[in-house]
Amino acid sequence: MPTLLILSSDADEYTRLIESANLPNLKFTSDPKDCDIVLGEPRLIRNTLPLLSTPKWIQAIYAGVESLMDSALRRDYVLTNARGVFGELMSEYVFGYLLFHEKKILERIRAQESKQWQRPQSGVLRGKTIGLLGVGSIGAYLASTAKHFGMSVRGFTQESESFADVDVYYHHPDILKFVQGLDYLVTVLPRTKDTNKIVDANLLNALPSHAIFINVGRGNAVDEPALVVALNEGKIAAAVLDVFAEEPLPQDHPFWTTPNLLMTFHTSAISYPENITKLFVENYHLYIEDKPLKYQVDFEKGY
Amino acid sequence: MPTLLILSSDADEYTRLIESANLPNLKFTSDPKDCDIVLGEPRLIRNTLPLLSTPKWIQAIYAGVESLMDSALRRDYVLTNARGVFGELMSEYVFGYLLFHEKKILERIRAQESKQWQRPQSGVLRGKTIGLLGVGSIGAYLASTAKHFGMSVRGFTQESESFADVDVYYHHPDILKFVQGLDYLVTVLPRTKDTNKIVDANLLNALPSHAIFINVGRGNAVDEPALVVALNEGKIAAAVLDVFAEEPLPQDHPFWTTPNLLMTFHTSAISYPENITKLFVENYHLYIEDKPLKYQVDFEKGY
Repeated sequence: MPTLLILSSDADEYTRLIESANLPNLKFTSDPKDCDIVLGEPRLIRNTLPLLSTPKWIQAIYAGVESLMDSALRRDYVLTNARGVFGELMSEYVFGYLLFHEKKILERIRAQESKQWQRPQSGVLRGKTIGLLGVGSIGAYLASTAKHFGMSVRGFTQESESFADVDVYYHHPDILKFVQGLDYLVTVLPRTKDTNKIVDANLLNALPSHAIFINVGRGNAVDEPALVVALNEGKIAAAVLDVFAEEPLPQDHPFWTTPNLLMTFHTSAISYPENITKLFVENYHLYIEDKPLKYQVDFEKGY
Repeated sequence: MPTLLILSSDADEYTRLIESANLPNLKFTSDPKDCDIVLGEPRLIRNTLPLLSTPKWIQAIYAGVESLMDSALRRDYVLTNARGVFGELMSEYVFGYLLFHEKKILERIRAQESKQWQRPQSGVLRGKTIGLLGVGSIGAYLASTAKHFGMSVRGFTQESESFADVDVYYHHPDILKFVQGLDYLVTVLPRTKDTNKIVDANLLNALPSHAIFINVGRGNAVDEPALVVALNEGKIAAAVLDVFAEEPLPQDHPFWTTPNLLMTFHTSAISYPENITKLFVENYHLYIEDKPLKYQVDFEKGY
């Protein structure tokens, strides 16, 4: 009988949601030695991994599963991550911030505070070019929103070329060609050995000075000192960061006082138990029918 | 030979753009007595209207043509306004402000200013219900963006029911039913005798207290003192206004100090000569072929 261990700070809610899905034969357990299925947060799973006796399937509730990628860790199970649920949230975040900049919302708030009938001209998304560094399910969703707003879309990927909303794909080593002339650069990369500091001084210098850079992937993708220099020297117009090399961001980090940098703190896409439960339920049906699970992680690639 | 008078502060740019379109037989003039076609700003046209000897077609470069609706003014010409060009801009504005609120962007900027790693949970557009007060070409575009973001769309109109992205239509006298349970109310109404203070205390009280109200139509649609009360008393959560009963907003207007009110100053959709010239060129071809022009204004309805 399939036995599920839940490792999440939202365990009660997950239990309630999964129970109410009435999955056939599913048993719940709190004993790591007794389970064949685990649902939970990658970091909690990592700590419990050595205790599991016969893990068959582990469903991560996040997209990022780097905590489980350490080559010293066991890999004798099928790992699935959460996909297809964060694109919509990321899209609201990314386009919220792009529109915030283009519509000069902060400037208008300041004008209002000083009782000034000021009419700075807004920028528009329509006609602009966005570059997506990483085009998986999240990037594809961002591309669809960009298309809705009448934008051109470039994608930089290792392999896949399957999304109709991406107008042009670029591949290694053409990353400087990829960023040339971009109005917006958005990083949606997972943390892997290949993504370390991919956004470096060369890349930032190759962007137009009016460009806006957004990172909603992982903090390792950014050479942070290089970004500080780029913003201080006006090499790019603005940056919005949701992720950092070290989180929480250290109090003495130069980002706190870097101009034209807006930060949010790893909140661009929340993992909602309702959404993740839907994924889990779908995969559970595949699991008991012994079919391939959806959203399997490749341990070699790291995503 | 068709003779065009341009009445706009962007007259030079319009002349350049229209000249480069090489329209057959078109002559330019600066003499009101000598023209049969006028392109321009409604207020400038209003002042020149008595001087025109034989106006046949007047193309307004704005959507709002209330300056020309005065029943004392001549109506012996075909008036066309600008449509189909503002929806995209309005959509960027409206969803920019909705996302600004839902993503708590200002709150996060404050957290950053005080060097606090704060993680307030964002709201989401997905699953929310937007009500469009007025559903012409602008409302239809807003509806399409709402659908892209996974929202439900209600429309309140006098007549048309032709836009697939509007889930439910409401009509007079069901306006309180229309606003019940809305997350967002967006007014896109033209200034007519029927739209005066349509957003009044009753309507504001019928909205949920978490609702956000946006007016990108005309200022006459809002009972301004009632909106001040609604915001002061927390009857609704926030308002964003681009238009006002009196513009520029008087210095002693209570709006300047009303809580949870963001104001922009009639800038939600700019009239770009490139866009308007396309409309003009299209209509000019119809005009010389003696075909019905696009976007004709009904003097009785006022739009």
